Amino acid sequence: MDFHLQTQDKGSKARAGKITTDHGEIATPIFMPVGTVGSVKAVHQRELKEDISAQIILGNTYHLYLRPGLDIIQQAGGLHKFNGWDRPILTDSGGYQVYSLAGTRKIKEEGVTFQSHIDGSKHVFTPEGVMDIQRRIGADIIMAFDECTPYPCEYKYAEKSMHMTHRWLKRCCDRFDATEGLYGYNQTLFPIVQGSTYKDLRVQSAEAIASFEREGNAIGGLSVGEPAEMMYEMTDLVCDILPKDKPRYLMGVGTPANILECIALGIDMFDCVMPTRNARHGILYTSEGIINIKNKKWEDDFSPIDPNLGGYVDTFYSKAYLRHLITSKEMLGGQIASIHNLTFYLWLVGQAREHIINGTFIDWKNDMVKKVSNRL
Amino acid sequence: MDFHLQTQDKGSKARAGKITTDHGEIATPIFMPVGTVGSVKAVHQRELKEDISAQIILGNTYHLYLRPGLDIIQQAGGLHKFNGWDRPILTDSGGYQVYSLAGTRKIKEEGVTFQSHIDGSKHVFTPEGVMDIQRRIGADIIMAFDECTPYPCEYKYAEKSMHMTHRWLKRCCDRFDATEGLYGYNQTLFPIVQGSTYKDLRVQSAEAIASFEREGNAIGGLSVGEPAEMMYEMTDLVCDILPKDKPRYLMGVGTPANILECIALGIDMFDCVMPTRNARHGILYTSEGIINIKNKKWEDDFSPIDPNLGGYVDTFYSKAYLRHLITSKEMLGGQIASIHNLTFYLWLVGQAREHIINGTFIDWKNDMVKKVSNRL
Repeated sequence: MDFHLQTQDKGSKARAGKITTDHGEIATPIFMPVGTVGSVKAVHQRELKEDISAQIILGNTYHLYLRPGLDIIQQAGGLHKFNGWDRPILTDSGGYQVYSLAGTRKIKEEGVTFQSHIDGSKHVFTPEGVMDIQRRIGADIIMAFDECTPYPCEYKYAEKSMHMTHRWLKRCCDRFDATEGLYGYNQTLFPIVQGSTYKDLRVQSAEAIASFEREGNAIGGLSVGEPAEMMYEMTDLVCDILPKDKPRYLMGVGTPANILECIALGIDMFDCVMPTRNARHGILYTSEGIINIKNKKWEDDFSPIDPNLGGYVDTFYSKAYLRHLITSKEMLGGQIASIHNLTFYLWLVGQAREHIINGTFIDWKNDMVKKVSNRL
Repeated sequence: MDFHLQTQDKGSKARAGKITTDHGEIATPIFMPVGTVGSVKAVHQRELKEDISAQIILGNTYHLYLRPGLDIIQQAGGLHKFNGWDRPILTDSGGYQVYSLAGTRKIKEEGVTFQSHIDGSKHVFTPEGVMDIQRRIGADIIMAFDECTPYPCEYKYAEKSMHMTHRWLKRCCDRFDATEGLYGYNQTLFPIVQGSTYKDLRVQSAEAIASFEREGNAIGGLSVGEPAEMMYEMTDLVCDILPKDKPRYLMGVGTPANILECIALGIDMFDCVMPTRNARHGILYTSEGIINIKNKKWEDDFSPIDPNLGGYVDTFYSKAYLRHLITSKEMLGGQIASIHNLTFYLWLVGQAREHIINGTFIDWKNDMVKKVSNRL
């Protein structure tokens, strides 16, 4: 993997860059649609490419390990071949799911024992095992196995957990570096900064993570319920420590405003289930603000969903029709809203990138944060 | 509406024809995807046109009357404008839904009182009212308000109901002929033959319906649980009475084999929820037979779904990936399977039409009935 830093904004810490993988280039800042079990919910691969202009999507190790299972993915020739997405893929390590989804789990130094949320079967994830699993899934960018602490989290627990995450990272790197990709293209490993909402822990963790000198770095354990200002403070602190010449990935963030603010702090990559999950419940993020399409006010609004975006669903379908589909619980409603929200997120980061390159980012960002937070 | 009978098969009663409406032509025999509440479930309008090659879709009076309601549809400029489908639409009269979905309903000579399945509110459908409703919805082809008898049905009830359906038809025609379309294009009214599974009633009903001399005729009250042979017998009988120079529509039919057999009996138009409903449960109709994609045997079958069809989903996605999506209850699974099944149904009637025109229908049909009934 290669990262080329193209522009550093003068009015903020925002950057524009280009990541090159064996499955193609990614222009940053970028938003990555979440395809948990190998499918971005309700969206065809053709739509991801042609309508949404997604450049990289996420998969999830925990979910893919349980279904369809590694044998099937490996027989297919890796996740790209299995799901037909031939651009870059990043896999989350499964740490977050093991803690949040799995019912009974035990975290020990060796690893985590957990039960499948599907059939209750017992499984063990260790740092080494999760590297092997991600080798078999075959994502271009794979994530270290960490512990994602909840919010709020006691200082002592956060400190102890962070040190374990660092020790686990060493084990991840050792295993990753001792193995090779199975499908003829390169994979790279991103470590994850933890430390909850404690400044000193975040500084310590960022320094430790930077010292591993991997090709990119991630920030985890944020956007788990803490106030946005706290998330920005931690992100700012950590970005100042993580190396400038490598991409920075803020995991699980967030609203359009969160993304704009964190681009301004130096983040290059984002992922979040929000645009697709909220779409299915009728929440639309648009270039003019947030729409709850279930509200009666949209019942007779026959204007297109968001003509500023110019995409298929945004110009073809009306708000009134989409409202009808969502309130009638028609699948097509969730499909249209998902494509729309993802199109908007990709449009938003694309606009941010253009403004960074043109030197007009900060004014645009301040204006846009207000606009996209506005409830219509 | 105009119907041009192009070819009459020599080896059977199959026909190839062309229906012309103000929203374009329909080549028959044709299958009409069902878009109950104004959306063919899980399928974008673009996919209906470009991938499935649908020429006409159905809407349902009962469902559209309840949601989004007639005011909204009329404000949009009719159903075509509301849902963005600019090719022909046919609306079912709602009779079937009032009997099968609505809990408490009372059928009287004047009309039917029923309760909404959504909120329990009380409504009345009369023949005149249903004509007015379908004028407001604005389909190209609208259906008479009839009583669809269940199977089995006592002779006396079937006879009494049939006579009421005929009296209702007179009221439908009077109201329809006394009114005009609201949106600047023509609408036409199809009457419906009833008579349950009784030969003498079917003959009586077909003769009565033919005497109204409408532009097309439908056969209702079949495919409600009776054996297929009985359905074919009734269809054969009725087709021999209904005029040759007008399209014949067999309502709610059926499996691929049912459709092929009924084309051979002289049916021109079909609709059925089967391809979309069964798709969502993982049942695929293919050019080689029926697939239950949930079966473990497809788990590692990385071949395309049905390469014979040549469509997007059929060549792009593998059986193993589709199985994974359906068993994981991912929306995309239902989407892919729905597009596939509809593509197959439209392919099948298109093939039938070609073979009728080329004079090779009957051998192809006999061979194909076996193939498409085969469980893979």
